[in-house]
Amino acid sequence: MRLFTRSQSLWEKAQALVPGGMPAHLSPNLLVRGQSPCFIERAEGCRFRDVDGNEYIDYLCAYGPMILGYNHPGVEAAVAEQKEKGDCFSLPSPLWVALAERMVNLISAADWVTFGKNGSDVCNLAVRLARAHTGRKKIVMAQGSYHGIGAWCTPVREGIIEEERSQVLTFPYNDADALEALLKQHGPETAAVIVTPFKHETTRDQEMPAPAFIDRLNALTRPEGPVLIIDDVRGGFRLDMRGSAEYIGLKPHLSCFSKAMGNGYPISALCGQQELKEAASRVFFTGSFFAGAESMAAALATIDHMVNHNSLQHIFRMGEMLKQGMLEQAASLGLKIRYTGPVTMPFMTFEDDPKFQKSRTFCARAYQEGVFFHPYHNWFLSAAHEEGDIRETLEATFKAFKAVKEMT
Amino acid sequence: MRLFTRSQSLWEKAQALVPGGMPAHLSPNLLVRGQSPCFIERAEGCRFRDVDGNEYIDYLCAYGPMILGYNHPGVEAAVAEQKEKGDCFSLPSPLWVALAERMVNLISAADWVTFGKNGSDVCNLAVRLARAHTGRKKIVMAQGSYHGIGAWCTPVREGIIEEERSQVLTFPYNDADALEALLKQHGPETAAVIVTPFKHETTRDQEMPAPAFIDRLNALTRPEGPVLIIDDVRGGFRLDMRGSAEYIGLKPHLSCFSKAMGNGYPISALCGQQELKEAASRVFFTGSFFAGAESMAAALATIDHMVNHNSLQHIFRMGEMLKQGMLEQAASLGLKIRYTGPVTMPFMTFEDDPKFQKSRTFCARAYQEGVFFHPYHNWFLSAAHEEGDIRETLEATFKAFKAVKEMT
Repeated sequence: MRLFTRSQSLWEKAQALVPGGMPAHLSPNLLVRGQSPCFIERAEGCRFRDVDGNEYIDYLCAYGPMILGYNHPGVEAAVAEQKEKGDCFSLPSPLWVALAERMVNLISAADWVTFGKNGSDVCNLAVRLARAHTGRKKIVMAQGSYHGIGAWCTPVREGIIEEERSQVLTFPYNDADALEALLKQHGPETAAVIVTPFKHETTRDQEMPAPAFIDRLNALTRPEGPVLIIDDVRGGFRLDMRGSAEYIGLKPHLSCFSKAMGNGYPISALCGQQELKEAASRVFFTGSFFAGAESMAAALATIDHMVNHNSLQHIFRMGEMLKQGMLEQAASLGLKIRYTGPVTMPFMTFEDDPKFQKSRTFCARAYQEGVFFHPYHNWFLSAAHEEGDIRETLEATFKAFKAVKEMT
Repeated sequence: MRLFTRSQSLWEKAQALVPGGMPAHLSPNLLVRGQSPCFIERAEGCRFRDVDGNEYIDYLCAYGPMILGYNHPGVEAAVAEQKEKGDCFSLPSPLWVALAERMVNLISAADWVTFGKNGSDVCNLAVRLARAHTGRKKIVMAQGSYHGIGAWCTPVREGIIEEERSQVLTFPYNDADALEALLKQHGPETAAVIVTPFKHETTRDQEMPAPAFIDRLNALTRPEGPVLIIDDVRGGFRLDMRGSAEYIGLKPHLSCFSKAMGNGYPISALCGQQELKEAASRVFFTGSFFAGAESMAAALATIDHMVNHNSLQHIFRMGEMLKQGMLEQAASLGLKIRYTGPVTMPFMTFEDDPKFQKSRTFCARAYQEGVFFHPYHNWFLSAAHEEGDIRETLEATFKAFKAVKEMT
């Protein structure tokens, strides 16, 4: 039986030093309290080892960033080459321009690009930019969608004052009529509509956008209407290398990327259409580490490797293999599950499991068998997941499904 | 004569790809248009080489982060050791706890700590936390002080709506009476007063806080009164390793750090007193790269090296040497200058130079002589600046002063 002794003792120490022990998604309390690892010692490919020496095949991929796998040779070589020159300078490195050029060539909806560190940095910038460009105040977003920790959108209201949220309107994701009704009423004051490429919020089954929803989003935004922003921070490069907008048929004016673009190195990007470029030069956007050259080297290497090796196709294939295997296992045991979203970043829930007790039982058993899932956040696959890893995973999931079966 | 041919051609390319060419402080237009480097190829110690092969002794230190110098062997060894294990994981690394413990032991006003990436991340968090803890809305800050790109404080209003700023009040830095009058009127609705450890905004002479101002800040905040926040993002670790609050006698409840703490690796920290810890656990704060282990290894190594080698004392000595040398040179040429702020991050302006024409002439000539200053942003010294570098710098500044003398 795997133990989490060192994890637990470090976690107790953390609670004395850090509010809540760990902030938000980094808290192991979100997993299975007392039955999950809390700290990671090292990682390689699609696997990590926790501080107690337990190994796992990882289906969180650092909550998205690791798309080529941990310690990827190509990415690390590019970073090492830049590291010898330096990372953080008094002016940008030439890599800023090289990466900007690469992304403008790659991303369908990009005439220009600028870079930050966090996904939140660029979602906040997109909203400001839309307001600066249109001279309008209101922002329309889907109920429950996550766009980072900006005051205008952060999902927890503690410390946020009502003034910061007063110009934000919401509609149910995928509800084209509700969107249209909202814009009929508020369109002339609406600066932007912001959406994720599919519904992927925590604790909810994922939902792909309905074609009618996409059509209406395209029809109701610019010219005259609001700016259309896609928040592709989580989905970016896991649906289509040209941006998820291309995959779903959306025509955004602004596109937000982060997570997977640097294979774990901290970077984010806002891409936009020509129309928005002048406003983008007026909105103030800066940070001490925004020009970090190592992260830009990592992003260039990640994108090039993904494109040259058709990595996304591989990830889709592995994702499909995992999905089919798990669906068959659940069916064979008479367990009703919902397996939703793109197979490259899927989510699984059990029927009649509103408090995720079955999911927690499933995950706790999977941890024992060396596979790392999250009970109520979508999962991620990487290019480092190979057929052998999926087969090994499926051996674990069968035992985990049986543990759920035994609950009932 | 040094040329900037490659810099200029890259800059032209950047303008096609990036709004404004480069955002904010990264734009070479802030230096001396056409007469300054725009992109950096590599850096080592206190020097960098631009893309045209010109070398400079650097007095910007990446706008603050480089406190031990570029490519510091101790910091790089610590990062390399962690890099072999990994950086960005599905759970935190043990370094989060180790760095938290180190900072709680080091920083006088810290009972706990949490980490982000940008200075803005932690300044925004501090304000939210104060609002969550007090249940009050108003924030009091000094006119013109820079606290990052949060909507509540960003210095450029483009894309910011009035609602986001409506609860922010300002007073003139160092004016204890104005602060007291403001709090007499708004105290019961004020969540926090936020100040920098000294006045260090762009284009202004720097100003140390008056003792009476510090006394009044301490007297007018908690209990009953607002929370006191120090924004030590720029000044942190360049005045006192225990935090700048210690150096100026301030008793803050929350302290924001970033820039120098990781010697260029992207990291920021919010430290707080026990009273604020519960509220800190309620405010939502997260980012995909917040637990990046390499940056934490860098911060631990930077802090340890600074403490063990008394690096700050060395930087003060070098700063004093530069200051005295430049004051003597200016006096000998009959030039009236103001050399303000701590010598570890000084700023120099010329009398009768409202548009910084003299400063630009000074800088343009310094660039030709291989020394990199900023015409209207404060400068930074690092532990890598040695006596020989300062002497070499002073040879350049004498020629630069003479160029200014020749203008008049």
